[in-house]
Amino acid sequence: MFVCVNRRPDGAPKGSCAARGSVEVHEKLKAMLKERGLAAVEARACTSSCLDTCWVGPSIAVEPDHYYYGRVTVSDVPQIVEALAAGERVERLVLTPEDFIEPKELRRRESEGEERK
Amino acid sequence: MFVCVNRRPDGAPKGSCAARGSVEVHEKLKAMLKERGLAAVEARACTSSCLDTCWVGPSIAVEPDHYYYGRVTVSDVPQIVEALAAGERVERLVLTPEDFIEPKELRRRESEGEERK
Repeated sequence: MFVCVNRRPDGAPKGSCAARGSVEVHEKLKAMLKERGLAAVEARACTSSCLDTCWVGPSIAVEPDHYYYGRVTVSDVPQIVEALAAGERVERLVLTPEDFIEPKELRRRESEGEERK
Repeated sequence: MFVCVNRRPDGAPKGSCAARGSVEVHEKLKAMLKERGLAAVEARACTSSCLDTCWVGPSIAVEPDHYYYGRVTVSDVPQIVEALAAGERVERLVLTPEDFIEPKELRRRESEGEERK
C-alpha cells in the first residue's frame, strides 16, 4: 500500500495529500498493520511521492490489487486494516474511474504556468 | 513504478537504495518516461519509502504487474523504459523469489538490536 505523502506549499490550488493529513494516515496504517500481525505477511505500508490524484487525496494505491483509496482520514484506517485482513476492500473509499479525472479548474491553472509535480 | 529512495546512514550494514544511487535512478526514469511520451499514458515514476528488499537494491516495484526490479543503475534506465514501451520487462533485472529472502547475516544483526525500518 503506497500512501502519497507529497506536500505542496500552503495555498497551492491543487492542495496535496500531506496537507490533508496523509502523513498521519500512513503512520496509523503502519502501526495498525503491525499490531494486527499483518505487516510482515500480508501488507506493507509505504509512503510514496505524488500519485496524481491530488484532488481526491489523501490517496493510497493498493497494489498489486490495483485499486486506489481516496479521501482517506486517520479514522478510516481501522476499517481499511480490517478489510485487508478479511481479503476485502472498503468500497466507500475506493476511487471510481471519474475520480481519476483531474477537475477542469485545476487543469486550467496548470496550463497557465503552474508547475505539475 | 515505485522507486525506493529510502536512505540509511552511511555504514549501516543493510545499506539502502538511496545510498546505492536510487535517487538518480528515479530522476532518470522520470525524465525518460516523459521524453518517450509514456509519462501520462503508460507509466508513472514515483518514489517510495523502503520496499524491504534493501539487500538487492536499488529496487523498483512495478505495479500493477507486480514484479520488482533490483540492483538497478542509472545505465539500466533506458532499457527499462524501452521494455515498458514494448510491453516487456528486463528479465536480467527482475527479482527472483530467492532475492526477496533477507540474507541471514542481516537478520542476525537486526535481532541484536538494530532497528528495522
